[in-house]
Amino acid sequence: MDLLEYGKIHHYKISKGIKRMPNYKLTIAYDGTEYCGFQVQPNGPTVQGALMKAAIDLFGHDVTVTGASRTDSGVHARGQVAALKAEKAIEARKIPMAMNVRLPDDIVIVDCKEVPGDWHPRYCTHRKTYEYRIYNGPVHYPHDKRHSYHCRKPLNLALMKQAAKLMVGTHDFESYSSAGKSVEDTVRTIYDISLSEVESMIYLKVTGNGFLYNMVRIIAGTLMEAGQDKRSLETIAASLEIRDRTLSGVTAPAKGLTLLSIQYDD
Amino acid sequence: MDLLEYGKIHHYKISKGIKRMPNYKLTIAYDGTEYCGFQVQPNGPTVQGALMKAAIDLFGHDVTVTGASRTDSGVHARGQVAALKAEKAIEARKIPMAMNVRLPDDIVIVDCKEVPGDWHPRYCTHRKTYEYRIYNGPVHYPHDKRHSYHCRKPLNLALMKQAAKLMVGTHDFESYSSAGKSVEDTVRTIYDISLSEVESMIYLKVTGNGFLYNMVRIIAGTLMEAGQDKRSLETIAASLEIRDRTLSGVTAPAKGLTLLSIQYDD
Repeated sequence: MDLLEYGKIHHYKISKGIKRMPNYKLTIAYDGTEYCGFQVQPNGPTVQGALMKAAIDLFGHDVTVTGASRTDSGVHARGQVAALKAEKAIEARKIPMAMNVRLPDDIVIVDCKEVPGDWHPRYCTHRKTYEYRIYNGPVHYPHDKRHSYHCRKPLNLALMKQAAKLMVGTHDFESYSSAGKSVEDTVRTIYDISLSEVESMIYLKVTGNGFLYNMVRIIAGTLMEAGQDKRSLETIAASLEIRDRTLSGVTAPAKGLTLLSIQYDD
Repeated sequence: MDLLEYGKIHHYKISKGIKRMPNYKLTIAYDGTEYCGFQVQPNGPTVQGALMKAAIDLFGHDVTVTGASRTDSGVHARGQVAALKAEKAIEARKIPMAMNVRLPDDIVIVDCKEVPGDWHPRYCTHRKTYEYRIYNGPVHYPHDKRHSYHCRKPLNLALMKQAAKLMVGTHDFESYSSAGKSVEDTVRTIYDISLSEVESMIYLKVTGNGFLYNMVRIIAGTLMEAGQDKRSLETIAASLEIRDRTLSGVTAPAKGLTLLSIQYDD
């Protein structure tokens, strides 16, 4: 049986003696403030851990939860995606509410769809959109503190837009990756970077086919330096040609970052 | 010496043997989630209590802090105003940062100006603007939970606007006041009510010369009932003619409410 055919049948039916396990695509929003990132780890609470706990309680058996993006400690999401594999089936449309009553207040299942058993949130082709919020007024309002970084120094948005333009396209983003999490292929494509400002809040949106470790936060840090005229357009152009972390800016703090959405080809 | 003249001199100077006490007008923003309202009370932490604690530490002596609005438990502010009376003088422009390092993260001094000693945040003529946020989508995002009320049932914004129009003007708002905090004069003027929607978030803004206890929350509750066609325009018109709490809607939850700003005639 090929994969296409496999995707069409009910995955939880016993077919040819193989038990089909239902696979759900979850869209998840969370406030990352209280979590040590998405992925389960021994040092503290994680979003994945909270999702598994709720799902095990709901399904009554062990489940696997695989996230599309391993967001860092303190990073938020409006549209994280995860695959939830279960042994028994529950109607997909009933899962968000059933999960939400079992989840803490800062994690919410926004949507749930049943998908073919081989569907994988990281291996299926997708593009991701992140948003980084920079508050550029004199006083950081309490309402905004959890979800934006406060940059007191005035930023020149026009300069930031010019710098952002250089980053769009396919480049080797090695200079925009934190050490320690080395990957072989550091070439990524950024489809779009937009910058807008509403009442001193700057919204930086970046859409790409994938991101290296801390890449969006380093882009945000670099653009803030460009906006203060502390990093020239020439240096930024060079940072995309030469693999040198010193050519890009600081890593902006996690709390300003939100994983907005993940768009799959299907 | 008349009041006008009094306002012009340095209040902390000893003049004619009377010690002038400096009076500061503070503009304050806070996330009300963790507070039992603005005003000091024995049952839990209050914004006024936090402000007094920080100011006593800063000035090194007892102070009085008088708020313009006694916001309820859970209600937020972007532009609460308070008078801070001290014995010794500190340059007004230095006060916000000096206070902010002493305040918890969810309270921020946005601005500070020295004002005449007789200036009082409640007795000087002013108008207040409140905002009530209603999230009208299927799933309430964690980011929005602390500062908006989730109304799952679809709201008809056009109907809400028609109902809001009836409330603008000078009316006896007795029907829009919670029992228990009776005042003699229940006539108030609403200068403007605006309703707008951005990505399922409805922003209701109300500007008036004063508000009765729970008045904005009852207006929000009434407009939500109008938007679900559960309360007719006729009933709402009657609620402004006849003093009858049953003619207006429920009191909407505190967390959706923010005191946006207070505009003084000076």
